[in-house]
Amino acid sequence: MIEPKHHKNEFLIERIAFFSDAVFAIAITLLIIEIHPPHIEKGDTAEMVSHKFKHLIPEFIGLTVSFMLIGGAWLRHHSLFKYVDNYDFRFMLINMLLLFTIILYPFSTSFLFNNLFEGGISKLQIYFYLGVPFASNSILYYMFKRVDKKHREHEADIRFHRALFVQKWMLVSFSLAILWIIFAPLKIHYYGYFFLYIGPLMITINKKKFKTK
Amino acid sequence: MIEPKHHKNEFLIERIAFFSDAVFAIAITLLIIEIHPPHIEKGDTAEMVSHKFKHLIPEFIGLTVSFMLIGGAWLRHHSLFKYVDNYDFRFMLINMLLLFTIILYPFSTSFLFNNLFEGGISKLQIYFYLGVPFASNSILYYMFKRVDKKHREHEADIRFHRALFVQKWMLVSFSLAILWIIFAPLKIHYYGYFFLYIGPLMITINKKKFKTK
Amino acid sequence: MIEPKHHKNEFLIERIAFFSDAVFAIAITLLIIEIHPPHIEKGDTAEMVSHKFKHLIPEFIGLTVSFMLIGGAWLRHHSLFKYVDNYDFRFMLINMLLLFTIILYPFSTSFLFNNLFEGGISKLQIYFYLGVPFASNSILYYMFKRVDKKHREHEADIRFHRALFVQKWMLVSFSLAILWIIFAPLKIHYYGYFFLYIGPLMITINKKKFKTK
Amino acid sequence: MIEPKHHKNEFLIERIAFFSDAVFAIAITLLIIEIHPPHIEKGDTAEMVSHKFKHLIPEFIGLTVSFMLIGGAWLRHHSLFKYVDNYDFRFMLINMLLLFTIILYPFSTSFLFNNLFEGGISKLQIYFYLGVPFASNSILYYMFKRVDKKHREHEADIRFHRALFVQKWMLVSFSLAILWIIFAPLKIHYYGYFFLYIGPLMITINKKKFKTK
Repeated sequence: MIEPKHHKNEFLIERIAFFSDAVFAIAITLLIIEIHPPHIEKGDTAEMVSHKFKHLIPEFIGLTVSFMLIGGAWLRHHSLFKYVDNYDFRFMLINMLLLFTIILYPFSTSFLFNNLFEGGISKLQIYFYLGVPFASNSILYYMFKRVDKKHREHEADIRFHRALFVQKWMLVSFSLAILWIIFAPLKIHYYGYFFLYIGPLMITINKKKFKTK
Repeated sequence: MIEPKHHKNEFLIERIAFFSDAVFAIAITLLIIEIHPPHIEKGDTAEMVSHKFKHLIPEFIGLTVSFMLIGGAWLRHHSLFKYVDNYDFRFMLINMLLLFTIILYPFSTSFLFNNLFEGGISKLQIYFYLGVPFASNSILYYMFKRVDKKHREHEADIRFHRALFVQKWMLVSFSLAILWIIFAPLKIHYYGYFFLYIGPLMITINKKKFKTK
Repeated sequence: MIEPKHHKNEFLIERIAFFSDAVFAIAITLLIIEIHPPHIEKGDTAEMVSHKFKHLIPEFIGLTVSFMLIGGAWLRHHSLFKYVDNYDFRFMLINMLLLFTIILYPFSTSFLFNNLFEGGISKLQIYFYLGVPFASNSILYYMFKRVDKKHREHEADIRFHRALFVQKWMLVSFSLAILWIIFAPLKIHYYGYFFLYIGPLMITINKKKFKTK
Repeated sequence: MIEPKHHKNEFLIERIAFFSDAVFAIAITLLIIEIHPPHIEKGDTAEMVSHKFKHLIPEFIGLTVSFMLIGGAWLRHHSLFKYVDNYDFRFMLINMLLLFTIILYPFSTSFLFNNLFEGGISKLQIYFYLGVPFASNSILYYMFKRVDKKHREHEADIRFHRALFVQKWMLVSFSLAILWIIFAPLKIHYYGYFFLYIGPLMITINKKKFKTK
């Protein structure tokens, strides 16, 4: 009986990472599929083309925001897996749950942004759109805590602490933004998005603390 | 002539795993593509938006169920490959057949769930939807048996036995559920889904037996 | 200056393989996207659902055939990369060209099979559908020859020779099938597909020769 | 405390590469999704099928051009990662930005090519289509410079210099083409595309300089 246990173990952890990568990558790329190029007809003037294109601007904003949210989640997932030295079944289930929230992005993005500037907007759309990153960031935060406690065998370094720090403040940001949407009237809901800058702000303030090299 | 046979062999097995991962990941992510965000128009009130969204609830249920079925299959595929130390051409063909059943999910899910609560439901839709996981679980069960007999070179551990155990009971569950649909009238077909809990139930009962660490 | 040349080289070859895998996997999974589930309405009887579903049967046949063609190409690509020990820029370009033919499958499949049994069929559709695997198999055959001559550093074994053999006969099969379509009238073009069995037939006849282990 | 730092570091760099590969692969494959097979009806003659197919020719040209642009970017990304021995957070952000430009291809391609030959064309569509590869090539060029200065620990070889050389001339080509579109009238904008041949031309002229082996 051969016992290449350690090697196989690494391969298995890498496979979880790569499977997750594939889901992240597909979700991030499907965002563009939801933006349908305008139908240009034979006699269309440049003004008409540009007018039709302008209708897509909110969707491109949505694409950009969701790209940053998925991309950010992937970056922290990447940081996290540096410290995963072993895993159990529950860890895989939690990772699956994270991936479930990731695949919701293409839907939640076009549900909110397809009609953002035309007035067709309601609290339900905003809840759904903010709820998805809230869920994925909660799960990621929990995964960081769990890896720190259970699955880590070598020293955590600055990168781990920064990712955990970002994770915590992302969670705070989204919680505050969602609370704002619940209690403030729909008309001033835009102000709630300022809470989302808390995360990056805190990082900038604490930049020195997390300087690599 | 260089002879890095063992290394190349591992790379080849990993490549089968990663190719399968990609197919699993794409199938699981395409599920969301089939759910089209409702078209919100300018004058729509919050009630109208919420009404349009409610129409999508069966599709989200379908998304969740299919996500769990594909995700579960991936988890067992992952457990299985821990023990694959060599492979032959037939093993690759069987794996291909498994992937064929996996890519059917986005279709079978929207075929059944797009109209689940509006009455437009027939036995054909249910057969198709249950047939897909029945097929993928049968193939996975066969793969486990084959790996155990032929492609395994190091000791099977608790994880292997648990995955095989789950695999067996998944098969039993789906067989019973399909039998129920065949013999029971369409109106009470919902009860057949309770059979699907047999697998998780058996696992819970035997939890101690499969405790890792 | 560190010189981990050999390791990096392996990583680079693996990355070509994995990128190709991803393209194969996406092309194979997108096949299902082209099959749109029938729209079931509230009052539809079981007969009507089954009638609507029957319309999709040619598309499922197309899915199955194309799945086998892409899957087969992937299997031989997998066999090929076992022997790739070094590569040059031209090798990567040829691999890219192969991937270009692979991504044409979802289009060529639905172009032919969407209307196969309703009479809406012309030689152009058949040329396109047969031309894609003809192109991918020609390129794969050329890649095998090139790897054998240039990029292989360790002994070719039985698996390599079998894959090369299959590759050659696939090419012969598709050439004959295409020639048949060119010269035979459209009405009897179905007979041309029998040529596609030449490959599997030759393999079966020569099975002993290529027995592994 | 285990300290398998070097191994983990390699795994992390590979994971960035593989995640990028997945995004490249999905973007390249989604190009085909935007080309909808013509609807063939029962009574359609061969001429009608061929007529309907001809309408898709500009889209196939777009597919081919975009495939070459994405494929070329991937090839240089692949060359680049051979020399990435360490990375920092900013490097990952820049890579993310690159991937953002890559996922825009399916949209920009069908925005321009869906109506290329029917007259429905305006400067906006051309700007968008040329802007995407201009952006991705600028970022790639910057990445090459950065890797050369910061993340490279072993000697750069001929492949690195060739990729950097191509990168520079791609940038020049796209800049000149965009300048042409800005200043020349729309009717003669086609001549601007000749600038895109500067890159390949420069490579051919300097072929000897970059000969591998």
